[in-house]
Amino acid sequence: MSILADLKTPCLLLDEGKMRANQDRMMQRVKSRSCNLRPHLKTLKSISAARYVLGGTDSPITVSTLKEAQEFGRAGFKDILYAVAITPQKLDQVVALRREGIDLKLLIESEEMADAIANKSNETGEIIPAFIEIDVDGHRAGIAIDQTDRLIDIAQRLEQGGSLHGVLAHAGGSYALSDEKLICEAALNEATKTVKMANVLRAAGFDCRHVSVGSTPTALADIDVEGVTEIRAGVYLFFDLVQAGVGVCRQENIAISVLTTVNGWNDQKKQIFVDAGWMALSRDRGTANQATDQYFGLVCDIDGNIMPDLVVVETSQEHGIITTRPGFGQDIQAETPHLPIGTQLRILPNHACATATQHETYHVLNAEGQLAQAWTRFRGW
Amino acid sequence: MSILADLKTPCLLLDEGKMRANQDRMMQRVKSRSCNLRPHLKTLKSISAARYVLGGTDSPITVSTLKEAQEFGRAGFKDILYAVAITPQKLDQVVALRREGIDLKLLIESEEMADAIANKSNETGEIIPAFIEIDVDGHRAGIAIDQTDRLIDIAQRLEQGGSLHGVLAHAGGSYALSDEKLICEAALNEATKTVKMANVLRAAGFDCRHVSVGSTPTALADIDVEGVTEIRAGVYLFFDLVQAGVGVCRQENIAISVLTTVNGWNDQKKQIFVDAGWMALSRDRGTANQATDQYFGLVCDIDGNIMPDLVVVETSQEHGIITTRPGFGQDIQAETPHLPIGTQLRILPNHACATATQHETYHVLNAEGQLAQAWTRFRGW
Repeated sequence: MSILADLKTPCLLLDEGKMRANQDRMMQRVKSRSCNLRPHLKTLKSISAARYVLGGTDSPITVSTLKEAQEFGRAGFKDILYAVAITPQKLDQVVALRREGIDLKLLIESEEMADAIANKSNETGEIIPAFIEIDVDGHRAGIAIDQTDRLIDIAQRLEQGGSLHGVLAHAGGSYALSDEKLICEAALNEATKTVKMANVLRAAGFDCRHVSVGSTPTALADIDVEGVTEIRAGVYLFFDLVQAGVGVCRQENIAISVLTTVNGWNDQKKQIFVDAGWMALSRDRGTANQATDQYFGLVCDIDGNIMPDLVVVETSQEHGIITTRPGFGQDIQAETPHLPIGTQLRILPNHACATATQHETYHVLNAEGQLAQAWTRFRGW
Repeated sequence: MSILADLKTPCLLLDEGKMRANQDRMMQRVKSRSCNLRPHLKTLKSISAARYVLGGTDSPITVSTLKEAQEFGRAGFKDILYAVAITPQKLDQVVALRREGIDLKLLIESEEMADAIANKSNETGEIIPAFIEIDVDGHRAGIAIDQTDRLIDIAQRLEQGGSLHGVLAHAGGSYALSDEKLICEAALNEATKTVKMANVLRAAGFDCRHVSVGSTPTALADIDVEGVTEIRAGVYLFFDLVQAGVGVCRQENIAISVLTTVNGWNDQKKQIFVDAGWMALSRDRGTANQATDQYFGLVCDIDGNIMPDLVVVETSQEHGIITTRPGFGQDIQAETPHLPIGTQLRILPNHACATATQHETYHVLNAEGQLAQAWTRFRGW
């Protein structure tokens, strides 16, 4: 009988050995680029998981909420970048966290927030440091590469009270790629444009010490651009089907999965029903536009062995429907296997961040395949 | 200054007056059908919200997890239907909950689970009652209308130790409709087929007292089929953009929204950035295939007034991008308004259940538009 038989389903499994290997791989790559790593812990949202994988509390980290800044900061991770554009309403909490001894840095991409941070710094005497975001690929936000006057203006406004910490970019466009050469180009583009904008600031007299870039695909690219000081990435800690589709990991590297139990069978439609719906898997369909659509997740047996081409084709809140991937021909396993009610399966997630957040706890499998411990996740803002 | 100005964003707002009106409307409809209402509380997941809207603790309820059964049962809601096919592994917890005094009923749709429930009942002396699920529209699971022999076989197996409580159907196919006449037909189909299967069981000598049907669209349909004893529905408590697209509510009836703050503006693309991404809104795209695609949600001003055709077109974990609905012509507001950083907005959700579950708390607005209280949600399984 599997050691997982006693777990209530659905629940979230975390293979600590796979996460460790993913972290080792990233550390090796970052070292070869002579940069620091600032992992994005929005993926983990767990003090225990962060302490395990970062081996201590002195790693710089990235967060996506002030709640994460507070939780990880109070747990000892003092060097924190909040990598979402700040709002005026959040600045008082930023000051309060900094006064707790958490060295919280912000991200800005507007004149208004440069002014607001300068004013808040002057008003409170707490000099708030910030990165200016550079838009390298039109993915979301930031100062475009041709807006050098605007960049300098924002830096000047910030330094009226706050402190320019550096420039930062996120090559989010890389998630849509699946070709190693193109990912390399995206990484080169991200790094060279961000370094260039740092140099624009330096030429204008600013002390722009930090150049921060990253996304999981570009962080893992085999490039080395002088001037980049730190790499940010998050989902690499777990990896997921989207990243496997991008080609930066294999499905076997995915460290989390959702344990579920078969609770029905439709003999007309040859469908397996399981007790993991979107509440356990999330509604993320990140692989929908990739070469291989994994629907709501790829099915493994209870030991984690992938069952080729068996996917969760549909979900409702607490129901999942599993079939062989639609559209398959005769050459590939055409019929969905009839699994007995009570059979436990594991589902690999499309998007690790989205699936993990549906759960309160990581059930941690150690290298011996034993259930070692339960790591609590937090959430909220 | 709005009373919402002090709330940290993103967060979840609940208009208790709208929820009350939605409940009153459903109660009126159910009374006109001479049925009982068994609200599905998977939408609320909050003791306080349930007590407010059900006005006491004696309402029968429906749940989607044993955690909900435990939480609501211990809060006084004793008559509970767990409306997801049970697994063998969960039966011990069912027995434990029943021994706490919670009258928990199960749903079955297989011979295996009929046997397992009978065996567990005999083994423990706790006679477990169950509904048999009928498949009325091929939506998901259940005994097909032509499988009358199978239906009788399952009932016989169940009664070897357990207890047949009734038959149940869920016209989930109704969510894909948007025409009042077709919804009425779906409701008639659901009710007549389920009553027919109850009569098959009665003719075979079973005491099939309860006939339970429902989905929000079919529950609200203006029909009356003799023999239906109870109606189940959940999302009607909040309503959402999917239900508005189906036509069973107006957008103004939607009782929950996500409060968010503008944190950026892309002048090239005319995009508003806000601090609500999929973590706050969910990844649900339930309106994608409706006549009007609401993308990740429809935007309102801070007072809840809908800003026509302004939608959240894209989300990442903590970022939302708002523009005028893509593809709009000259006749409709073509340009996205440039809103100042710090502006608060409300986002109406595609799917209320999916959005609400991303939050720990309902910030409750009372009839005077005052922030009355905070109601805690629970989650997990």
